[in-house]
Amino acid sequence: MSEQRQEGITVKKMQDFSEWYTQIVTKGEFADYGPVQGTIAYRPASYAIWEKIQNVFDGMIKGTGHRNAYFPLLIPESFLAKEKEHVKGFAPEVFWVTHSGNNELGERYAVRPTSETIIYSFYAKWVRSWRDLPLLLNQWCNVLRAEIKSTKPFIRGSEFLWQEGHTVHASKEEADKEVMMILDFYTELVEKYLALPVLSGFKSESERFAGALYTTTIEMMMPDGKALQSGTSHNLGQNFSKAFGIRFMDKENKSQLAWITSWGMSTRLIGAVLMVHGDDKGAVLPPKIAPVQAVIIPIYKTGEEKEVLKKAREIKKKIESSGVSSELDDRDDRTPGWKFSEHEMKGTPIRIEIGPRDVKEGKAVIVRRDTSEKRSVPDSDIANTVLSLIETMQKDMFDRAKANMKNSITETNDYKKLCEAVKKGGFVLSDWCGDSSCEIKIKEETGATNRLLPFKDMKKHGQCVVCGKNAKHQAYFARAY
Amino acid sequence: MSEQRQEGITVKKMQDFSEWYTQIVTKGEFADYGPVQGTIAYRPASYAIWEKIQNVFDGMIKGTGHRNAYFPLLIPESFLAKEKEHVKGFAPEVFWVTHSGNNELGERYAVRPTSETIIYSFYAKWVRSWRDLPLLLNQWCNVLRAEIKSTKPFIRGSEFLWQEGHTVHASKEEADKEVMMILDFYTELVEKYLALPVLSGFKSESERFAGALYTTTIEMMMPDGKALQSGTSHNLGQNFSKAFGIRFMDKENKSQLAWITSWGMSTRLIGAVLMVHGDDKGAVLPPKIAPVQAVIIPIYKTGEEKEVLKKAREIKKKIESSGVSSELDDRDDRTPGWKFSEHEMKGTPIRIEIGPRDVKEGKAVIVRRDTSEKRSVPDSDIANTVLSLIETMQKDMFDRAKANMKNSITETNDYKKLCEAVKKGGFVLSDWCGDSSCEIKIKEETGATNRLLPFKDMKKHGQCVVCGKNAKHQAYFARAY
Repeated sequence: MSEQRQEGITVKKMQDFSEWYTQIVTKGEFADYGPVQGTIAYRPASYAIWEKIQNVFDGMIKGTGHRNAYFPLLIPESFLAKEKEHVKGFAPEVFWVTHSGNNELGERYAVRPTSETIIYSFYAKWVRSWRDLPLLLNQWCNVLRAEIKSTKPFIRGSEFLWQEGHTVHASKEEADKEVMMILDFYTELVEKYLALPVLSGFKSESERFAGALYTTTIEMMMPDGKALQSGTSHNLGQNFSKAFGIRFMDKENKSQLAWITSWGMSTRLIGAVLMVHGDDKGAVLPPKIAPVQAVIIPIYKTGEEKEVLKKAREIKKKIESSGVSSELDDRDDRTPGWKFSEHEMKGTPIRIEIGPRDVKEGKAVIVRRDTSEKRSVPDSDIANTVLSLIETMQKDMFDRAKANMKNSITETNDYKKLCEAVKKGGFVLSDWCGDSSCEIKIKEETGATNRLLPFKDMKKHGQCVVCGKNAKHQAYFARAY
Repeated sequence: MSEQRQEGITVKKMQDFSEWYTQIVTKGEFADYGPVQGTIAYRPASYAIWEKIQNVFDGMIKGTGHRNAYFPLLIPESFLAKEKEHVKGFAPEVFWVTHSGNNELGERYAVRPTSETIIYSFYAKWVRSWRDLPLLLNQWCNVLRAEIKSTKPFIRGSEFLWQEGHTVHASKEEADKEVMMILDFYTELVEKYLALPVLSGFKSESERFAGALYTTTIEMMMPDGKALQSGTSHNLGQNFSKAFGIRFMDKENKSQLAWITSWGMSTRLIGAVLMVHGDDKGAVLPPKIAPVQAVIIPIYKTGEEKEVLKKAREIKKKIESSGVSSELDDRDDRTPGWKFSEHEMKGTPIRIEIGPRDVKEGKAVIVRRDTSEKRSVPDSDIANTVLSLIETMQKDMFDRAKANMKNSITETNDYKKLCEAVKKGGFVLSDWCGDSSCEIKIKEETGATNRLLPFKDMKKHGQCVVCGKNAKHQAYFARAY
C-alpha cells in the first residue's frame, strides 16, 4: 500500500486516459477489484462521497414528501416476466439464484437488476383508493447486472449502489410533473454539488428504459470524449399498472389504472467526479462533497512539534467552527512530503501547512488542490480564506468542466462531419428525422448512440443528418460508456 | 388498506402473541410479505426506524475512528470454503447464484450470508505494515440466509438489513478491547434509544459464531418468553488471518498474523421494539427513535377549520423549534377518530388534539401513547410538556421492560425447576459445568439453548444444573427466536 502510494500516478491523464483512471481509482484507494468479474470494493474514500451524495439527494426527496423503504433483493422469474419489454431488456444480464443450501428451487430467482417488478407486486396490494395516492417511495440499495465487457470501477460494473424511486399517481399529468421534478433534482445534485455540467432531454424510442412510456436523462461528457448517462427519470405510463394490476378507486368511485414513474442515479457519479476533475497528481474532489474539505499538515523537526501541533489544533478548531470539515494529519511516521502527495492523490480540496516559522509569524500556508495556488495567510484570516476558497474552487471546477463540455460539442447536419466529430470524441448535435434506422446507421458506422433529444429544441429543424429527410428533432450523438 | 386499518388489532397481545405480532406488523404498515419465503418489504414506517438506528450507531462508530465501506454481494464458493468452521455454519442457508443471463458460471457464487470471507480477501491485499493498523471498517448492507421454518417479519427472515464491522488489529489485546467497546455501543443503542434492556455476556463454545475465537452477545426477553439475540461482537482471533493470509510487518520488521474482530446488529431490532413495547392498540415507539415524535390532530366542524388549522400550525412550529419531530395530520378526508387509531397503530409517542374550544381557551390536549394519559395544557406550556413527556415516556418504557425482563428470570440449580421454568418462558439462570453434553441435554429435553455466560459471574459456583459436577460458569438458558 504505502510504497504504492508514494509512487504516485505514473501516466498522464491525456496520454493514457484508461490507465490513468485505473491508477486514480486504485492508488487513491477509492476502489479495489473483487473476485467476481465487474465487482469492486467501495473503499472508505469513495463510500464517503456516496454518503454525501445520499445526504443531499435524500434531503431533496424527503422535502417533497417521498419516503424511503426497502424491497426484497430476490425476484421470482415469473414476476420479472410480467412486463414483456422489461424482461427482454434485463434478462441477458441477470444473475440467477437456483439453489438454497442443497435444495434446488422450484422457480429461479433473479438478483434484482432493478426493482420495478417486485415493487409493483407490492403496490398492487397497497394502492386501493385515490386517498392512497400519490405513493412516493424510494429505496437505497445494491443492484446487480452481469457485465462481462468493458467493466470499469464505478462507471460500469456487475454490482453498484443506487437509489431507485417508484411513485404512483392518479393521472399522467401528475406523473409527468414528478418525472421532471426528479430530473431537476438530479441536475441540481450533479451540477451544484459534484460540479459536473449536464445536458438534459428525452431519450429516443430505442434508447428508452425497457417498459417506459418515455425516459428523461442527464448526460455528461468525459475527458476521453465519451458520454456518460448519469441519471434517468421515467414515466412508465400504465404499462406496469396493467401488468401488475395497480388500480385505484377514483373520487367518483370508478376503478382506474394508476400512472407510475421510476428514477435512479448511482455510484456511477463517483466515477464521473474522478474522471472529469482528476489531474496528473490524482483525484480532485469538489469541496461540497469532499468528506474532508481541508487537511492540516504540521511540519516540524524534533523539538518543534509541541508548538506546531498546538497551533494546528487551534486552526482545526477554528475552521471547523465555521463549518469546514477538516483533518489534522498528525501521524508521526510519515513525512510531510508523503502526506502532501497522499492528500493530492485523494483529492482533498484544501491543504493547510504549518511550520515553526508560521507559528512565529502568526501565519499558515494555504494550498488549493485544483490550481496548486499557494498563499500565506495571517491567522485571523485563515477561516475566511478557507471558506471563500471552498466557494471559488467549487465554482471554478464547474466552470472549467462546463467549458470543456461546450467545447466538445460539434453542431453539424453533414454526415461526414458527424463521423469525423464522433471519431474525435465529444457530442455531435444534429437534426434527426426520428427514424430508428438512421440512429442504427450512425451506431453501426461510428459507434455513437443517440444520447438525448434536448428539452429546449426551439430552432427550426433542417434535414436529417443521415437520410436528408425533414428532421423532427435535434439530437446529441456520442460514443458512450 | 384503509378499511383494514380502521378495523384495528383484533387479538390481545397476551392471548395470541403470534397473531397479534402479525397484525401489529401488517396493519401498522411496518412490513408486508414478499413472494420469496421469508422476505418482506420494509415499509416506510419501519425503514424510518432503521434510519434512526443507523444514525445513532453510525455516530458511535465514526466517533471512534471507524469508516464505512461497501463490499461485493457475491462470494465465490471457494472463498466461503477457506475457513472450515465458517463454511460448515453457513452453507446450509446460502442462496447460490449459478447462472448469469443464459450462461452457466464456472464457479457458484454465494449471495452473502455474512461477509467475513469476501472482506478478508481484500484485507489480505490492504494490510502490509503496522502503519495500516488498526483497520476499522463497517458496512451497511443486506444479507441473505435461506430460512424455511418459523420466519417472522424482522425477527427471522431470508433477507435482512444490518451493519457488519470488520476490524484488523496488531494484537489480541487490541482486538479484545474493540470487541467490548462495540458490545457497549450495542448496549447503549438498544437500552438508551430503543428502551430495550439486555443481558450481556459470552456465548458458550457451541453457540459461538462459526470461525470465532469467542463471541459476545446481548440478549433480550420477548413477551412470549422467548429470548432474542440482538447483537453480537466476535473476536475471530487469527483463524481468518491464517485462512486468508492477513499478515503485517511489525515495528521490528517481523511478519505477524493479524487479529480480527467482526460484529453485527440488524433490522431484527425493529421486531424487538414492536414485540416488547406494543400493546393491544398497536405499536408503541420509544420517543428517541420514533420518526414522528408528536402528531397534531385538528378537530373541527365546517367553518371552524381556519382558526383550528392556524393554531395547529403554530404549535407544530413551536414544538419543532424545541427539536421535536412532528406531523400535522391535516387530511380532510379522514375523521379525527380514524386518525387517532391510525397513529395508535403506528405507535406515534405523543398526540396533540386541537379543537375550537382549545383555540378559545388557549389550550391543547396532549395524550401519551403508552399510558393513554390525557392532559389539557395551556399554550405556553405545550413545548415543555412535550419535551418532558418524551423523556418520561422513554424512561418509563425502559423501566417497564426491565422489570418484565427481571421478572422473567428464574434462578435455580434444580433441573426439574429449570424444565418447568423453560416451559413457562423466560430466562433460567443456572450453574453449568461447561460441558456441551449438558447444554445438549437441556436443548433436547426442553428446547432451551444456552443464551449467554454473564460477564459479571462473581458468585461462587455450585453444582451443574444438569450433571451435578462442579460448575465453571453461570449461564442463562431460554428458548429463543
